[in-house]
Amino acid sequence: MTQVTTAVPFKVRDLTLAAAGRHQLRLAEHEMPGLMALRAEYAATQPLAGARIAGSLHMTVQTAVLIETLVALGARVRWASCNIFSTQDEAAAAVVVGPNGTPDDPQGVPVFAWKGETLDEYWWCADRVLDWSAEAGAAGADWIGPNLILDDGGDATLLVHLGHEYEGAGAVPEAPAGASAEHRALLATLSRSLEASADRFTRIAAELIGVTEETTTGVHRLHERADRGTLLFPAINVNDAVTKSKFDNKYGIRHSAIDGLNRATDVLIGGKVAFVAGYGDVGKGAAEALRGQGARVIVSEVDPINALQAAMDGFQVARLEQVIGEIDIFISCTGNTRVLGVEHMLGLKHLAIVSNVGHFDDEIDMAGLEALPGVTKVEIKPQVHEYRLPNGRSVLVLSEGRLMNLGNATGHPSFVMSNSFTNQVLAQIELFTRADAYPIGVHTLPKILDEKVARLHLPALGVELTELTAEQAAYIGVPVEGPYKRDTYRY
Amino acid sequence: MTQVTTAVPFKVRDLTLAAAGRHQLRLAEHEMPGLMALRAEYAATQPLAGARIAGSLHMTVQTAVLIETLVALGARVRWASCNIFSTQDEAAAAVVVGPNGTPDDPQGVPVFAWKGETLDEYWWCADRVLDWSAEAGAAGADWIGPNLILDDGGDATLLVHLGHEYEGAGAVPEAPAGASAEHRALLATLSRSLEASADRFTRIAAELIGVTEETTTGVHRLHERADRGTLLFPAINVNDAVTKSKFDNKYGIRHSAIDGLNRATDVLIGGKVAFVAGYGDVGKGAAEALRGQGARVIVSEVDPINALQAAMDGFQVARLEQVIGEIDIFISCTGNTRVLGVEHMLGLKHLAIVSNVGHFDDEIDMAGLEALPGVTKVEIKPQVHEYRLPNGRSVLVLSEGRLMNLGNATGHPSFVMSNSFTNQVLAQIELFTRADAYPIGVHTLPKILDEKVARLHLPALGVELTELTAEQAAYIGVPVEGPYKRDTYRY
Amino acid sequence: MTQVTTAVPFKVRDLTLAAAGRHQLRLAEHEMPGLMALRAEYAATQPLAGARIAGSLHMTVQTAVLIETLVALGARVRWASCNIFSTQDEAAAAVVVGPNGTPDDPQGVPVFAWKGETLDEYWWCADRVLDWSAEAGAAGADWIGPNLILDDGGDATLLVHLGHEYEGAGAVPEAPAGASAEHRALLATLSRSLEASADRFTRIAAELIGVTEETTTGVHRLHERADRGTLLFPAINVNDAVTKSKFDNKYGIRHSAIDGLNRATDVLIGGKVAFVAGYGDVGKGAAEALRGQGARVIVSEVDPINALQAAMDGFQVARLEQVIGEIDIFISCTGNTRVLGVEHMLGLKHLAIVSNVGHFDDEIDMAGLEALPGVTKVEIKPQVHEYRLPNGRSVLVLSEGRLMNLGNATGHPSFVMSNSFTNQVLAQIELFTRADAYPIGVHTLPKILDEKVARLHLPALGVELTELTAEQAAYIGVPVEGPYKRDTYRY
Amino acid sequence: MTQVTTAVPFKVRDLTLAAAGRHQLRLAEHEMPGLMALRAEYAATQPLAGARIAGSLHMTVQTAVLIETLVALGARVRWASCNIFSTQDEAAAAVVVGPNGTPDDPQGVPVFAWKGETLDEYWWCADRVLDWSAEAGAAGADWIGPNLILDDGGDATLLVHLGHEYEGAGAVPEAPAGASAEHRALLATLSRSLEASADRFTRIAAELIGVTEETTTGVHRLHERADRGTLLFPAINVNDAVTKSKFDNKYGIRHSAIDGLNRATDVLIGGKVAFVAGYGDVGKGAAEALRGQGARVIVSEVDPINALQAAMDGFQVARLEQVIGEIDIFISCTGNTRVLGVEHMLGLKHLAIVSNVGHFDDEIDMAGLEALPGVTKVEIKPQVHEYRLPNGRSVLVLSEGRLMNLGNATGHPSFVMSNSFTNQVLAQIELFTRADAYPIGVHTLPKILDEKVARLHLPALGVELTELTAEQAAYIGVPVEGPYKRDTYRY
Repeated sequence: MTQVTTAVPFKVRDLTLAAAGRHQLRLAEHEMPGLMALRAEYAATQPLAGARIAGSLHMTVQTAVLIETLVALGARVRWASCNIFSTQDEAAAAVVVGPNGTPDDPQGVPVFAWKGETLDEYWWCADRVLDWSAEAGAAGADWIGPNLILDDGGDATLLVHLGHEYEGAGAVPEAPAGASAEHRALLATLSRSLEASADRFTRIAAELIGVTEETTTGVHRLHERADRGTLLFPAINVNDAVTKSKFDNKYGIRHSAIDGLNRATDVLIGGKVAFVAGYGDVGKGAAEALRGQGARVIVSEVDPINALQAAMDGFQVARLEQVIGEIDIFISCTGNTRVLGVEHMLGLKHLAIVSNVGHFDDEIDMAGLEALPGVTKVEIKPQVHEYRLPNGRSVLVLSEGRLMNLGNATGHPSFVMSNSFTNQVLAQIELFTRADAYPIGVHTLPKILDEKVARLHLPALGVELTELTAEQAAYIGVPVEGPYKRDTYRY
Repeated sequence: MTQVTTAVPFKVRDLTLAAAGRHQLRLAEHEMPGLMALRAEYAATQPLAGARIAGSLHMTVQTAVLIETLVALGARVRWASCNIFSTQDEAAAAVVVGPNGTPDDPQGVPVFAWKGETLDEYWWCADRVLDWSAEAGAAGADWIGPNLILDDGGDATLLVHLGHEYEGAGAVPEAPAGASAEHRALLATLSRSLEASADRFTRIAAELIGVTEETTTGVHRLHERADRGTLLFPAINVNDAVTKSKFDNKYGIRHSAIDGLNRATDVLIGGKVAFVAGYGDVGKGAAEALRGQGARVIVSEVDPINALQAAMDGFQVARLEQVIGEIDIFISCTGNTRVLGVEHMLGLKHLAIVSNVGHFDDEIDMAGLEALPGVTKVEIKPQVHEYRLPNGRSVLVLSEGRLMNLGNATGHPSFVMSNSFTNQVLAQIELFTRADAYPIGVHTLPKILDEKVARLHLPALGVELTELTAEQAAYIGVPVEGPYKRDTYRY
Repeated sequence: MTQVTTAVPFKVRDLTLAAAGRHQLRLAEHEMPGLMALRAEYAATQPLAGARIAGSLHMTVQTAVLIETLVALGARVRWASCNIFSTQDEAAAAVVVGPNGTPDDPQGVPVFAWKGETLDEYWWCADRVLDWSAEAGAAGADWIGPNLILDDGGDATLLVHLGHEYEGAGAVPEAPAGASAEHRALLATLSRSLEASADRFTRIAAELIGVTEETTTGVHRLHERADRGTLLFPAINVNDAVTKSKFDNKYGIRHSAIDGLNRATDVLIGGKVAFVAGYGDVGKGAAEALRGQGARVIVSEVDPINALQAAMDGFQVARLEQVIGEIDIFISCTGNTRVLGVEHMLGLKHLAIVSNVGHFDDEIDMAGLEALPGVTKVEIKPQVHEYRLPNGRSVLVLSEGRLMNLGNATGHPSFVMSNSFTNQVLAQIELFTRADAYPIGVHTLPKILDEKVARLHLPALGVELTELTAEQAAYIGVPVEGPYKRDTYRY
Repeated sequence: MTQVTTAVPFKVRDLTLAAAGRHQLRLAEHEMPGLMALRAEYAATQPLAGARIAGSLHMTVQTAVLIETLVALGARVRWASCNIFSTQDEAAAAVVVGPNGTPDDPQGVPVFAWKGETLDEYWWCADRVLDWSAEAGAAGADWIGPNLILDDGGDATLLVHLGHEYEGAGAVPEAPAGASAEHRALLATLSRSLEASADRFTRIAAELIGVTEETTTGVHRLHERADRGTLLFPAINVNDAVTKSKFDNKYGIRHSAIDGLNRATDVLIGGKVAFVAGYGDVGKGAAEALRGQGARVIVSEVDPINALQAAMDGFQVARLEQVIGEIDIFISCTGNTRVLGVEHMLGLKHLAIVSNVGHFDDEIDMAGLEALPGVTKVEIKPQVHEYRLPNGRSVLVLSEGRLMNLGNATGHPSFVMSNSFTNQVLAQIELFTRADAYPIGVHTLPKILDEKVARLHLPALGVELTELTAEQAAYIGVPVEGPYKRDTYRY
């Protein structure tokens, strides 16, 4: 079984980059015990033999380990990134050459992703991972697309659904007046497809067994589609696995939030007043990390339950307006919009740090800041900008208001991603091998698999699990081997 | 509206005790802002006017504040304890005399509970709170029982269901051969009832609108009954409200576990090796408290997800057998059975402390310990016993293996109970005023009420809640006033 | 060698009390590994054989273990308490009967201390432990007093110095006009002595090899005397041993401060705003404990270095006036006076808790509070009083403003006291066996002994110490066996 | 008063670098409030007018702020780095051009330092900062050297002392057989000086008022010289100011240790087993930071007092050998040698991280590792090397065993250095303006200045200091304005 990598853009096929990337993969594999355990467990049975996976997820070193795990389980894979900036080029290159490190290693995977794509390039790449005609040709097969999507944010899924819809309508609509550049690029991609084929996406949709989705945003889109009855194939919501949401959000942010602050500013966190907007899992992780570095943390919340948790955890809970003049470090952790407005920024201390580790880019009103009369922007270094305000003070904005743990540091560490990605692999196996269990709709993984993901990560941490006796299992009414909790259990 | 307190046993009608109790109630009210806020909010509308509530829940000072809140909202109430040892006599007496402190205050409530009941007395008390004939007589009414039960552990609910069942069968069955003393006492109570009336419990069951249940155990019993189709009336599961389970279990135990250790032993916790069996909410609270006192905490878990959480929180996760010889303080937090067996106790250090804050009494194999040949039991002080083992070492057992945060300290503090009990009052109001919304089955409170409970406790802690703008609420698709989260959100 | 216990007041010679006390001693011995290790180490050599120790230190269970350690090392001992309230009667009784538990066990020790002494009784007791005539008679010796004092606060030392001074002057002075009742009682005691003998204290002073002093206050008095040149014999300052001051103050308070709060009030500490006045070792311990229970802690400081430490440890540092209206729990940890004045108390929240774990009783202006017009004092329970203020609010005062970790809980745990008392024993041995090394003046223990105290407490905690290689010791210029640090090292 | 910068090597006079450096200085100034406060306080009085300061201290951005503070107080300054790798070139360049940023700003300072000096260049630079002949010429003065040294590690002081000694002997000795390359370079520099002048260092020594020394090593050397009676001028030990040692070591490491780990490896710290060798201030900071990130921390200690502190702080204390196979992250914090030997490295887990934040480079036996037969070294990235061991496992060594918080991150943050450097400036002022108070010997700063350093850093953190009342100051016997503690106080 050979992946067709010859169509991969030349910039991704750089052997020097690839060599550097292979080094990093080897270290990352050590920190991704869940994926490596799956490789060992399924080496013989090859549960993904026959699977054709189109991936759309940040093309990082960790994702490279995910991709090679899918391949190790028998799958054919094509990959794009789900963000124009997030590709680590050496990781992309390493995956293309495959473990053997030769240009056309049969285990090399076609990757369509590089750091700094244009929007047109982005959608071209997304389209490429859905085009399996070359593979079909090589295999003498009659399919044209993937049978599985592994998605992050839902762009690949969107492309299939819109393509299917427009093919049904016979035309791609005009971009509306205020359409974003991104939306125009998407429509242009679909127009090109429709020009070339009147039923390409219709056939792709029909060939798809389903999609596994990584994030809140993508799951939200899937639920909307399911609620409207327009979802074309089953979806597994990986995002809400406990070992994804509670680990990625809390422990990942605990690590990467202070890493971003440190790399961006080198400012001592100890003794500073840090304001954490939002006390969900992300805010909990950020607050714990900042306290662990000796900051005084003030939290804001809209949800009274989370607010009460913050108070019980010993944090001052205040509205931003009340304490705006005390803040040294602001971190947005809400998933909401305009949490820090221009009016707030004008109230901050001189050189207060403004940053975001929430889900979206509009938590900080960067547009408003840019538009403020009299404001001056000075680049301190890439991803660190001083905005000199008309009031004579400055604020220090990290990653232009986008996720600073990604922009100023390297995002979640491998071990955290290993949890998320082990869920992804198990979800792909579920769809591929037990399709009957997943009718069209949005599903979560069975708890026993969530527990399995955790289980695979314990030995690396030296954790010794206790085993229930038969008597004990009977006493609480669970199987000895799990699952151990009801679905409503909150951990 | 006058409660009938004349039938209350003389020991509960002690004016000296009552005066001491009223003092404590006043202080407890200050720490129970949720209940006091409900009194203020509903003073005018009296939503429980007409409600006849039979309560079966530990008759403590906090429960006294709950009872008087129910009365302040218009309810008539009769009360028993759900444990033979847990009554605080001064609280019982205070409730009987009512806020005015006079023997027959019309706001006095009939209470059938005292510290140290026999099992026969216990079930007699439970039966008394279901007998509203005196009230009916005073009111010239034709009902004979309560229309609502407020239960903790499900004994009052059990009594009604068994009474109903045996009346249907026409006889109370013989106690089986190995029946416990408690079960025999229960059957005797039902026999007496059946002798006096062939349909008393049948009528009581018919009059009942529903029950609100406080604990895991009680909810478990309700689910079993609902699954078998034998549940006679609707039930609201208060236990699984976030503001109950996550607060009571975690923050309550964080407080009371070390309080119990300290009062029992006066042993310095700092520097000691503490073993926490189970890392659910109870274990999380215990582990945090012990670490906060400088102990080195080792955790055991059977559930790999919870185990991974413990590791991520920085705790060593080991099996009990691996580290048995290092442990100074053992705390069981599992809800399971024989977590600490005799074979473990024989491996502990000399004078290691053995204690339990889990849900049940059999987490520590006390029966096995008592039966061990050569063991000697020495009372150090009430609820603290040294067991001299045949191996020459001793263990120090708190509260004879029962919940030491109750037995050696005073259980959860008022503020924690205020959260639980505010849920109870809201659940009672729901059943009484919106019965149509709750068909026979086991329900949880709507999330908006859970959030309300939290909201009512924030001002006392100086928490200032942030309010969503209309734009922000629309952005995340929730009402400005909540609820803010999906039901699956884990907090 | 027999102690003369027949002169001990009858109330201390209560066999029932003694039996209860022996139980507690046995448990305390387990938590005092330093003292038990000294007993083992010196069992054969009996370094205190010939020592006659007059002790004046709180007559608690822990002190009982200290006393019996001194006896086990060969000393004769007589004991009084250094506080009229601090005696645990069962501990006193247990020491009198000695390990064998018989009324005239030769190892029994004469104790002159009971809970609730009058001031006259207090000074009578202090005088008794300096009167060794009965022992001398039994031994046919020509001395009349002790050759060592073990002091806490310096009262025994004061008695000898004043007695010596007044004998020199030939008269005890009249009490000045505003003299306290305590001072009058002291003068009366000295008058009685002078009536009986013109040179008794002069002889006692001459017989004394020296004193070892436990506390800050006592050390302060010794330094004053040494500075004025009136110190009569050498003194070892035990208080400033690292294993005393840094452990007793920080880790002892970390334990006992929240223990006192809990036993006094049962109020949930989590989520509350706690104000810690002073961030010395005591304040550090209190702040850590409160944070460990989930309180939000605000600290006040006068010393900018300590203030900076508090900020670096993540605490808000504010003046009391700034935040007075937010405080739920006030704990004074300063060693200063009128830290919480009446004007502050009038600004506190309703039912705020007011307490003191500092060194002295006047941190909280209780006199001012008592004198405030319109104030009412209500006893909630012993050592817990509600003061209803004229502004309609109340404050809850613990232990009437005195040390609440002693008054509402049981003070420092045995393990902490074992550190302090092991220093005491080593100091007594130093004075007795190496008197030449300690000329008149105030000395601290050699660092090697401080390290030894720590060393003796490690095995009980499972600590495995690393040993320097010869190469490493040479590299940093210290002996392999210590001492390892310069005297100025701050730990 | 003009500094003579024309002799500065061309590479330090790079205007592009300088512009980048000025940016960073401006941000650093915001984080160095102590230095900026001194500039404001002493702007008018110019206490260092007439001072000629030769500095030898890492030429970083923070040091640049220090240098410009000295200049702002009136001093002339010449500067070298005290480490061949530690210079930040843009900081050096920025200092040369001075605040105005022009090539020959009169406030520009001659700097002789660049990243990656050879050993010969290093000693040449050190010699240059002691050569003030150009300045003397410009000023028409008859001195030839500095009158103050600001030293870090003592190399400038060593150069003067050896120069003086060899001039006295008339010759520079031959390098002994096994002399290090560094020692040979030093001797060569001195030979060149002696060839040029027979009494240059003798005159320089005579002109020197004294030296202020930054580090443990340098202070150690000064004490040795003072003990042998060969110290030529007074020295102030800045290292042991509380606001230096307790802040730099503990809070600086708390920040930079995890920063170094993160930048080097991106490995998730949470859940890992971290081994901290040494629990002095450095180890305390590292352990706190690691725990704050969710690691399980095991500590080793040789000093029983520090070991007991670690246990009381809740850490497992073990010997390295006991737990070698459990360790994921090793951090040496001892100041000792061969703490991690090759035999240990062979026992570590695969890909365990090996790092050092102690005082010296030989804590990890890198020489032994390099010499191990069969070992292979692979560079992962600069300062991160994988050593493949003959046992098939690898270790990941940071910064080749040198201080990884410097090599892999950016060392202590500005705020921490502001504390240290404010001490330095005050020490320089002390020596220059109150030379009589400091005879030849090694002195520490008066406590009131230590407190002043802290005081100057409080406003930036929002700390509000409490002021003693006159009554309170009298009560504890200190002046209202400080100093507040005895010299032996340990903080």
